[in-house]
Amino acid sequence: MPNQPDQFTATTTVAIVGVGLIGGSIAAALKSRQHRGRVVGVGRNAERLQSAVSVKLIDEYVTDLRQVRADLTILCTPVDHIVSNARKIAANNSQTAIFTDAGSVKEQICTDLSAELPGRFVGSHPLAGSEKRGFEYADAELFVDRLCVITPTKTTPENRTEFIEQFWRSIGMRTLRMSPAEHDAALAQTSHLPHLVASVLAGCLPSEWLKLTSTGFADTTRIAAGDADLWTAILLQNRAHVLAACERFESTWREFRNAIETTDAVELKQLLVRGKTVRDAMTND
Amino acid sequence: MPNQPDQFTATTTVAIVGVGLIGGSIAAALKSRQHRGRVVGVGRNAERLQSAVSVKLIDEYVTDLRQVRADLTILCTPVDHIVSNARKIAANNSQTAIFTDAGSVKEQICTDLSAELPGRFVGSHPLAGSEKRGFEYADAELFVDRLCVITPTKTTPENRTEFIEQFWRSIGMRTLRMSPAEHDAALAQTSHLPHLVASVLAGCLPSEWLKLTSTGFADTTRIAAGDADLWTAILLQNRAHVLAACERFESTWREFRNAIETTDAVELKQLLVRGKTVRDAMTND
Repeated sequence: MPNQPDQFTATTTVAIVGVGLIGGSIAAALKSRQHRGRVVGVGRNAERLQSAVSVKLIDEYVTDLRQVRADLTILCTPVDHIVSNARKIAANNSQTAIFTDAGSVKEQICTDLSAELPGRFVGSHPLAGSEKRGFEYADAELFVDRLCVITPTKTTPENRTEFIEQFWRSIGMRTLRMSPAEHDAALAQTSHLPHLVASVLAGCLPSEWLKLTSTGFADTTRIAAGDADLWTAILLQNRAHVLAACERFESTWREFRNAIETTDAVELKQLLVRGKTVRDAMTND
Repeated sequence: MPNQPDQFTATTTVAIVGVGLIGGSIAAALKSRQHRGRVVGVGRNAERLQSAVSVKLIDEYVTDLRQVRADLTILCTPVDHIVSNARKIAANNSQTAIFTDAGSVKEQICTDLSAELPGRFVGSHPLAGSEKRGFEYADAELFVDRLCVITPTKTTPENRTEFIEQFWRSIGMRTLRMSPAEHDAALAQTSHLPHLVASVLAGCLPSEWLKLTSTGFADTTRIAAGDADLWTAILLQNRAHVLAACERFESTWREFRNAIETTDAVELKQLLVRGKTVRDAMTND
């Protein structure tokens, strides 16, 4: 039961709302690290949650948000459900319980929940995932050595921010603090734009040429297999920053297109070298 | 020595011009399948070729194109060098020796070499590769179950086309015949456009956000690490078809952008579903 937790420890009770790939991997990571506090799954589908209990991914589950009781509640639902889920849980949960989330867009969520749950919500975005869905793909090592962006607002108490950092570090992540707006501007470029581009590339392929795709096309379009509802919500919730990222893409695209149209080999090579230099600088493969 | 080969067999002598990732992998594939004919590496750098002999990837090497002697010569050099390389070799090689290549663009090469080496050249494009370079990355299994497009022209003798098909099948590939122009139109869309897009995506990233990239960005930009000279030549040699592929990309891009600008969730979801459907239909992961 919640009792003014100051630190995330091995006995902290954790509720995970949305036991899918991310929520399931958090549960798997806690279990594989001998977390002793209860891990409660929260969702709408009792049968699915019971399966997660059967495979010992979670200890128990509830399907009624009003019954969630935990020191730390982690919202892993789609970005357009996080605020309403938190609101329903908080209305019936101890005033001391702490909330975080795993949403890909932070500004709207952090603004709303800073106002509704003063001092109790700290936004997070673990930069790890996959185009797959469901706790069947849960991976206890998904977060290891990956970056988690923590987005406190001006009103977030320092000890609550540290609590959330301790939590993500406990499952192997590195953490970085940014403002919600800074996060959204950066992720529009590093995550939301690539999703858009992958989807355009897949969507504009004449079907008779599908058999002529190879590893390059497969890599470049892989994330287009992500869930369409989730990504509709992400792209629209981060609309302004996504459109700014689109402008950057279009500006570089026009340089490439112009070099090809004018058969300017020197310029085209320079542009390709610029892209290669950025890619070569990445440490993630 | 060349002696009117009718079929590709385990004793056919093979010259590989350009012992890099593709040429080296062809050599490795032949060796791992107990090919008994000599495998001759051809290139400019004697030291590198001697290393390839030392690791038994090739049996011997020559650095003078005029000294190439083989039943089958496979040109694995950049697309803008294939015609001139073939010309120099053919000027000093038996009238019966057969040529093929591994170039990513076919129409110009097939037109030129059909005229210069009547009946002796059959274009090929094995759809396999990587952004890596050098025979150190040679992989005997690179071609297994992958598709090789064979592009005979109207004047190519049927038995020569079959010879080349036998060769690629001997190292595990499936083959498909297409005209050079059909090939170039399709590959502009399935290979050259993705490269362009990956390079734009990497090139337009503000450097301070590099640390906020994750697996999605890594996948989507992986091929941007490819060699800039090779890709400059490919994009320009296939310029007209690449520009047509760019038009298709831009048309779908505008639909996505418009849906985001107008906050049209229904339309945006439909577009994402279209991309996902194409991606889900791919058999290559």
